[in-house]
Amino acid sequence: MAIQIPRGTQDILPGVVEKWQFIEEKAREICVKYQYNEIRTPIFENTELFLRGVGDTTDIVQKEMYSFDDRGGRNITLRPEGTASVVRSFAENKMFGNATQPVKLYYLGPMFRYERPQAGRYRQFVQFGVEALGSMDPAIDAEVISLAMELYKSLGLKKLRLVLNSLGDNESRIAHRKALINHFQPRIGEFCSDCQKRLEKNPLRILDCKKDRDHELMKSAPSILEYLNEDSKQYFEKVKQYLSAIGIDYIVDPTLVRGLDYYNHTAFEIMSEAEGFGAITTLCGGGRYNGLVQEMGGPDTPGIGFALSMERLLSALEAEGINIEAEHTADCYIISLGEKAKDYSVTLLQKLRQAGFSSDRDYLDRKLKAQFKAAERLGAKFAIILGDDELETGKIAVKNLVSGEQIEISLENFINDFSKLCR
Amino acid sequence: MAIQIPRGTQDILPGVVEKWQFIEEKAREICVKYQYNEIRTPIFENTELFLRGVGDTTDIVQKEMYSFDDRGGRNITLRPEGTASVVRSFAENKMFGNATQPVKLYYLGPMFRYERPQAGRYRQFVQFGVEALGSMDPAIDAEVISLAMELYKSLGLKKLRLVLNSLGDNESRIAHRKALINHFQPRIGEFCSDCQKRLEKNPLRILDCKKDRDHELMKSAPSILEYLNEDSKQYFEKVKQYLSAIGIDYIVDPTLVRGLDYYNHTAFEIMSEAEGFGAITTLCGGGRYNGLVQEMGGPDTPGIGFALSMERLLSALEAEGINIEAEHTADCYIISLGEKAKDYSVTLLQKLRQAGFSSDRDYLDRKLKAQFKAAERLGAKFAIILGDDELETGKIAVKNLVSGEQIEISLENFINDFSKLCR
Repeated sequence: MAIQIPRGTQDILPGVVEKWQFIEEKAREICVKYQYNEIRTPIFENTELFLRGVGDTTDIVQKEMYSFDDRGGRNITLRPEGTASVVRSFAENKMFGNATQPVKLYYLGPMFRYERPQAGRYRQFVQFGVEALGSMDPAIDAEVISLAMELYKSLGLKKLRLVLNSLGDNESRIAHRKALINHFQPRIGEFCSDCQKRLEKNPLRILDCKKDRDHELMKSAPSILEYLNEDSKQYFEKVKQYLSAIGIDYIVDPTLVRGLDYYNHTAFEIMSEAEGFGAITTLCGGGRYNGLVQEMGGPDTPGIGFALSMERLLSALEAEGINIEAEHTADCYIISLGEKAKDYSVTLLQKLRQAGFSSDRDYLDRKLKAQFKAAERLGAKFAIILGDDELETGKIAVKNLVSGEQIEISLENFINDFSKLCR
Repeated sequence: MAIQIPRGTQDILPGVVEKWQFIEEKAREICVKYQYNEIRTPIFENTELFLRGVGDTTDIVQKEMYSFDDRGGRNITLRPEGTASVVRSFAENKMFGNATQPVKLYYLGPMFRYERPQAGRYRQFVQFGVEALGSMDPAIDAEVISLAMELYKSLGLKKLRLVLNSLGDNESRIAHRKALINHFQPRIGEFCSDCQKRLEKNPLRILDCKKDRDHELMKSAPSILEYLNEDSKQYFEKVKQYLSAIGIDYIVDPTLVRGLDYYNHTAFEIMSEAEGFGAITTLCGGGRYNGLVQEMGGPDTPGIGFALSMERLLSALEAEGINIEAEHTADCYIISLGEKAKDYSVTLLQKLRQAGFSSDRDYLDRKLKAQFKAAERLGAKFAIILGDDELETGKIAVKNLVSGEQIEISLENFINDFSKLCR
């Protein structure tokens, strides 16, 4: 019996993979422009990293991690997100001592969460993300948001909404936390068991609860924006001012809290407003996480970043009717007939490739007509027709498969003359 | 306490990652020339795939796999190699029915084996590989080998050795197998316990044993080449003929058997002959695996491919003293002084990036001199100097950091004039 792909994962095949390559190349180009450098961390980390770095009250850590013991008895976990690993690497490799500061990094690769598979949601999915470590300039918050927006816009997406909030600094968060506890405490019995646990551990996350979202206390819950101290207020004002200055529209939503434990100050999400996009409209999420580097064993270092899902980006493109071309082409295809011609085509093919031409030949001993068909299917611009007779006369027929025009090229100087023809 | 990276894995950081990017781009370019298309399969597969596809007598399956139960109780394994997954995908996605045949694929990504970490050997390592499925033309064996050689040569490697063998077709293998059993059986008691198990299961792999390699029966063991039937002999002759025709030197070594169970006909390895390269000299291994697609539940389809390790490729470059430049550059860096100038630099930076310039600014509120230093460290070609005064006069100083030359550009038409300057 045939063995199948694991549930919740997908193969990305030729015909589709070209779209991924195109988007990834675009993301890399934008990172060069914005001066973010790539970092590659391992696919798995010691489990402790995510308990500490993602937060042990989150759904990710409690329900969704691929954790297991390796053959040496160490508990390791397939990374469910990118920030914890980047911060671990920043601290471990002492990047806080780098000559160039802030340290601006990007990553691109698979992440893993054991969730119920549904449209646009996979257990293995690809995230592109950036992290800027070492600066508390609100201009870098705007830069990070701008980088994500530029990727979307450069691909042609128009129906985007940027939602912004501030979670404030530590002092503001403590004040808000108290207010939340006071607000929910008297009637916490009416909430789900998860929310009851959240009340003491992290009451902010009650606002994120899907079960209790219609409870009347939700709407009247104290807004973080009312509890921002002067510094946090000023910081938020500056971020908004810079976004406006660079022409990025936003909506402030004081209920935006993000799923992870480690955010403070700026939090943001980019959503698709395209019709028929589906239930999950968040394309990208990010925010500031001052304190996380210290939590991971490094010196106190501010940080901000985002992560976006490649799968959702592709869905958004589809929802807006944007098609990234994935057309297959080749410069030439060698059609050969006869034993000697077939043998010689191996040499000629090698010469063509060495000269830089994307080229191929028949590997199935097909008839003339089928070889022409194969050349067309590859999207070849030229067919080079090689028979035993042509080899003897030293003249090879070259057919332009677009115009239908056919000429003869001498074998002696073939690569040179063919190169001229292609120009 | 700080959390560390898992044993046997590595972070690839800016300064080094550029080398990886360069080599990967080169590999992708060569695949375009050779008409191989990318395929991306999941990081993990159902464990059964590797038991069947790699072979349950191999070291990989018996000792080195990262296998575990997921939250749904399915046993899954981090892929230890790429071929089994590609063949699984080929069968599952019915690529044998594709219009374009043979199906030529490449992959590039991390693999996982729980081995003792040592120089150049990691538990997570990156493989680049190709698979050509559907052709029994010996010219495609030569093509696959040529593709690997071209990658190495294009990077400047010279000290390479291609080792070639034929394992023959099924009939030849059965004849050789009998001869091997007859040869070893009488004195199998003198061999290690692994070899004793191999005698019945897969006697060919006795020749691969590291413990018994000095036993006198090893040298006198019957060579597969003496047992090739007429078809297999002819096939091997053609492969060698084509390699010579395209200028690829090789050495035939009848003891080359490869570590995996599924090979037949052509088997090859590319080794580094660079001095001081270390104990593991194999850079790339591959071969033909007719029968594997059927084993995986597809129709009987011939196949050939190779896999090469990126880590070993990097070591080989180092051993030959070849340095891939990973220099950091930027088009410009904005140096700003004063509150208004700092604010305005956010807008100017956005405009520069929108015009395609790789650019940055100070995010640490540094003094003039430190900002110039930062610009140099980034490798910026131009420094754009912005003060509150300059903003009022509408004239901005632009300094060429290579020549030291400084000119003024009007703010009004800045991007346009700056673009001209850069050309």
